[in-house]
Amino acid sequence: MSTVLEVIAVTGLGEVRRGDDLASLLADAAELHDGDVVVVTQKVVSKSEGRLVPVDHDDADARLGVVLSESVRVLRRRGELVISETRHGFVCANAGVDLSNVDKGWAALLPEDPDRSARRLRDRLEGLTGAHVAVVISDTFGRPWRRGVTDVAIGCAGVAAVVDLRGTPDDRGRTLVATEVCVADEIASAAELVMGKASGIPAAVVRGVDRRWLRSASVNEEVVRPPAEDMFR
Amino acid sequence: MSTVLEVIAVTGLGEVRRGDDLASLLADAAELHDGDVVVVTQKVVSKSEGRLVPVDHDDADARLGVVLSESVRVLRRRGELVISETRHGFVCANAGVDLSNVDKGWAALLPEDPDRSARRLRDRLEGLTGAHVAVVISDTFGRPWRRGVTDVAIGCAGVAAVVDLRGTPDDRGRTLVATEVCVADEIASAAELVMGKASGIPAAVVRGVDRRWLRSASVNEEVVRPPAEDMFR
Repeated sequence: MSTVLEVIAVTGLGEVRRGDDLASLLADAAELHDGDVVVVTQKVVSKSEGRLVPVDHDDADARLGVVLSESVRVLRRRGELVISETRHGFVCANAGVDLSNVDKGWAALLPEDPDRSARRLRDRLEGLTGAHVAVVISDTFGRPWRRGVTDVAIGCAGVAAVVDLRGTPDDRGRTLVATEVCVADEIASAAELVMGKASGIPAAVVRGVDRRWLRSASVNEEVVRPPAEDMFR
Repeated sequence: MSTVLEVIAVTGLGEVRRGDDLASLLADAAELHDGDVVVVTQKVVSKSEGRLVPVDHDDADARLGVVLSESVRVLRRRGELVISETRHGFVCANAGVDLSNVDKGWAALLPEDPDRSARRLRDRLEGLTGAHVAVVISDTFGRPWRRGVTDVAIGCAGVAAVVDLRGTPDDRGRTLVATEVCVADEIASAAELVMGKASGIPAAVVRGVDRRWLRSASVNEEVVRPPAEDMFR
């Protein structure tokens, strides 16, 4: 395992619009090396993919309508805040529908298949740069019991979502019962530390992750917990 | 905001035992600079503070007894797994009681007051090194809806737990409604990426965090969500 990790903000990406070639913008803005994990926020991925719907920002019913149309199950509702499950299986506020940093009159939806979006970005980044890289698409989720939001992974390609250390002996030589670490979420969180909400930096490079984690991967298959397995749904 | 963050594993700390001067071990093992955030796992803090109780590892009732004695409220129970609230207000598996990487016959409890533990560590590190540093005490928590554990902050000193960007305009100049980011949890997650469960590295230095975050802080006051405010308790 590498003992030093670097997290580098990708600046100068400019405004991302529908139909933009995001991989090309990223390849121009960042110098990528083998083993780098490129973390990109959901919002620019959604924008480049045209995942935008018109909504009257000042109409609470219209806003709620978009959220409900993106939800398969509502878990809790308090005033305007809806905690729901998306068709991807994510449980989050307002089904991931975003009205900030989007043109007035529009809302950004989550990508249809964020793992697929990550794979496409990765393939194209490798084609453009020749570097073997991985991609994590991040979004900002709240969580129960703890205040404050953190960034998590909603899609990934080329880097493990969950690393299974089950059966790896602990430092006393005993077998660990269950230590499945969601490294994709930790990578997304690390990236957020250099992106910042208000500074308009929608991507970061995480350099130096454990090379054993670089493999085919999927947030959908590895992270999304089926309802039957869940104690809080 | 700094655009490069470094996360550096602290190696060579050796085995930490009851009564050890953890700050002195850390100061010897790491070269600390002004603005560094030292992330230390709960387990070595608990060990150095003697937060160990005897328990028969092979006796499920005894293990459960320790967990319940550390809980103020049980949220869910499935077989041996208890999701409960600790007296600190943390909701986690088995009240944070840890049987791995602890001598057979003993369990490690959470520190009595992790923010206080962080403050003491920080004061002593500053005294030993002359560097103005911050401290985050991390632990590994599961979460609902998503598989895999991630590291979060259970105590902090000298670095913000939650950064309130409420009211900061987004890049369209509109006011953001609510963007309180739990940077302490993100710092803990970033540190976990270089620590690894099985490699026995219980500390990391996070270098380059936004200097505006370096202030008096408390996980208890900023992160722990009161039950009345919580939708999942």
